Amino acid sequence: MDDPHKLSATEAAAAIRCGDLSSEMLVRRCLAKISDREAEVGAWIHLDENNALDQARALDHALTAGHALGSLHGVPVGIKDIYDTADMPTQLGSPLHHGRQPERDSGVVELLRRAGAVILGKTVTTEFALSHPGKTRNPHDLRRTPGGSSSGSAAAVADDMVPLSVGSQTVGSIVRPGSFCGVFAYKPTFGSITRRGMNLLSRRLDHVGVYARSVEDLALIGDAVMVTDPEDDDMLAHPGRNLVSGLANLVQFAPKRLAFVRSPVWDQADEDAQRAYEDYARSLGNIIGEIELPPEFDRALEDHHIILNACLAAVFKREYEETPQQLSDKLKARIALGIPLAASELVDATDRADGRRHLVDRLFDDYDAVLTPAAPGEAPADLTTTGNAAFNAIWTQCGVPAINVPLLKGSNGMPLGLQVVAPRGRDVKALAVSRWLWRRGGDHG
Amino acid sequence: MDDPHKLSATEAAAAIRCGDLSSEMLVRRCLAKISDREAEVGAWIHLDENNALDQARALDHALTAGHALGSLHGVPVGIKDIYDTADMPTQLGSPLHHGRQPERDSGVVELLRRAGAVILGKTVTTEFALSHPGKTRNPHDLRRTPGGSSSGSAAAVADDMVPLSVGSQTVGSIVRPGSFCGVFAYKPTFGSITRRGMNLLSRRLDHVGVYARSVEDLALIGDAVMVTDPEDDDMLAHPGRNLVSGLANLVQFAPKRLAFVRSPVWDQADEDAQRAYEDYARSLGNIIGEIELPPEFDRALEDHHIILNACLAAVFKREYEETPQQLSDKLKARIALGIPLAASELVDATDRADGRRHLVDRLFDDYDAVLTPAAPGEAPADLTTTGNAAFNAIWTQCGVPAINVPLLKGSNGMPLGLQVVAPRGRDVKALAVSRWLWRRGGDHG
Repeated sequence: MDDPHKLSATEAAAAIRCGDLSSEMLVRRCLAKISDREAEVGAWIHLDENNALDQARALDHALTAGHALGSLHGVPVGIKDIYDTADMPTQLGSPLHHGRQPERDSGVVELLRRAGAVILGKTVTTEFALSHPGKTRNPHDLRRTPGGSSSGSAAAVADDMVPLSVGSQTVGSIVRPGSFCGVFAYKPTFGSITRRGMNLLSRRLDHVGVYARSVEDLALIGDAVMVTDPEDDDMLAHPGRNLVSGLANLVQFAPKRLAFVRSPVWDQADEDAQRAYEDYARSLGNIIGEIELPPEFDRALEDHHIILNACLAAVFKREYEETPQQLSDKLKARIALGIPLAASELVDATDRADGRRHLVDRLFDDYDAVLTPAAPGEAPADLTTTGNAAFNAIWTQCGVPAINVPLLKGSNGMPLGLQVVAPRGRDVKALAVSRWLWRRGGDHG
Repeated sequence: MDDPHKLSATEAAAAIRCGDLSSEMLVRRCLAKISDREAEVGAWIHLDENNALDQARALDHALTAGHALGSLHGVPVGIKDIYDTADMPTQLGSPLHHGRQPERDSGVVELLRRAGAVILGKTVTTEFALSHPGKTRNPHDLRRTPGGSSSGSAAAVADDMVPLSVGSQTVGSIVRPGSFCGVFAYKPTFGSITRRGMNLLSRRLDHVGVYARSVEDLALIGDAVMVTDPEDDDMLAHPGRNLVSGLANLVQFAPKRLAFVRSPVWDQADEDAQRAYEDYARSLGNIIGEIELPPEFDRALEDHHIILNACLAAVFKREYEETPQQLSDKLKARIALGIPLAASELVDATDRADGRRHLVDRLFDDYDAVLTPAAPGEAPADLTTTGNAAFNAIWTQCGVPAINVPLLKGSNGMPLGLQVVAPRGRDVKALAVSRWLWRRGGDHG
């Protein structure tokens, strides 16, 4: 088999299951690709080849011995370095956690192992999954940012180093890097994936999500990790959505009506990106209608930052006072914004954000899904930033499923993603619309 | 039938169902009892006899016509005046809402009507369900407070004016008045009863709950209102607990082991109440073990007030600035405490409170339920206060089911309640333990 590292996870899992490919071979080829490119791309912060190969061989033996298979048996997955791993350090992109070795796997890693995945290594996160970048570069253009905070997870999947990875999103940390790196990215409905053993910034805003190179793969890994965890109080009682079978049942699905939403932050998009999104929306013809978000959304971004900055002032209080030299200037600036906030401002911002969760549901009375920019433009040619998350905050705040579909190109030929949004709990619909758009292709302008 | 207003709700519903009693007769007798005593007790803020009798007659006709019966068919219920009612004003115990007439029933009232209940009238609440008292007096001793904030709901059930009522608890507003007035009071697991159309103070802390004169009646009304509401985002997906059948199945239940918890606020109890609780615990012999809450609970009361005061500063911002003369001094003092709180303090207090929800679960590894004071003593002989909620805050904050069992007497012969607490979701266990204690009786000192 040529280039097994380029297979989708669904293809790789099937090939392993029927003996056409071993997990060891797949992992070796992923490691070889990493070895070729890592010096330039810098997607990984911890990678122990022997550990990865040991996992793969054990899974190959289990398969030969006829042991029960998980849906990801033998498939490697990259893990953003904010999720605890019992056999690898978890360093949160911060010198404060240099060399930290957790005792127990995080919930999401535990579920991936249960599904038979090889935990290939830990991918680069920005400092504490916030704005200060790590070493990762955009695999499409090494002068450009991959986005963040899930920088390594997005870049590794984009560069065929691993077919699947786990990221996280508090503002736009999954969908935006997906757009910049040209991969599928999926932030499920709030409460769908356990956050046990994840470094939390904000209980109200933090989401676990995933990267892949196809919609089917998003569903495959989604099903493996959308399982309720009694140790995570904020989870849905029934997070499982049967995404793979849902997508299979919707094989003939075509959306009746889609909503194009510029959103209140439209002015923050580059002109050529605005044009690309408008042209694409126009190309969909009668199926698409443009809608405006109600005025309650005008302050969504501001409220998002109130909630997050207040949390940061609480979470990093000790570090800010005792070891400020270990925090980036960007993080310190956010904490400094959070410190003077009044508790009543936080109550109000949270109440307004909670209200938007209901308002957003009504958008979908007449539409299958919302299409909106995944990012304000191509990845900036600047490695000191991870770009602007303004187009993601509203949807994160509302807890709705959001998917990056890597469908468009900017004027420099860099990827530009379409963000597909569905109501809470209708993750299958978001995936089905994404697949339909992807199959239809992006070249209709 | 003599004195139908003294029947339990379960007895009254059965008598109505088999034609031994009409809803009209029951309502007439409740209204007569109210007419006798209301000038002294002051439990009601809105009572329209014709409206109540119209509802009762309509339900009697429906029964004669063979229409489907709800579990509360024909049984009157009093509603704390913070729940919207489409046919009665809802005034929140505040001059700011004098004469306010909602357009739509609150969720809990809607469910009660669906179960066939007669909405008898609106009971007195303290100002906005906080500390400033209304006109209600304790029916056992008119010089004493009935407790609050559910003052009228507790007093009306205690005085046989109505067999059932609805209250609310943010700190100790259901269980404490239950203790002071000598009635059963039940605050279910957080998220069990819809808060749509209720005047909210704090999403994190507000609970809907009920009063009755027997454990069976708590289960009867609990089943009628523990139904999920898509308009209340904070509800459990499956709040229904089948309390009535659960209790019936546990008819032979006896607890194996109970925990006596003094709690970190033990020093706030009166000496004679401390003695009464200790004597009672001792009377239970080998079945009871004393446990101490872990040190994380030492700050529970302080955190509770941080969360609540921050919410009050947000909720009443406009009133505090524009119409302060319309707010009580007690409320203004709380708002004044809330205004200077930092957002990060609120984040920390909420995180600690959320952590206690998990810690409290572990208490029940070796015990069926916790027994702890429902109040720091008898109802104070002071109508300017509603008493001290310190013994209730921890359990409210943890979202666990808490029941007042009116089992003891203080040195002045006033009621003194035992608070029975079970883990979240095990409301049936809390009810079964309460019934066992009640049947066993209080005179074992």
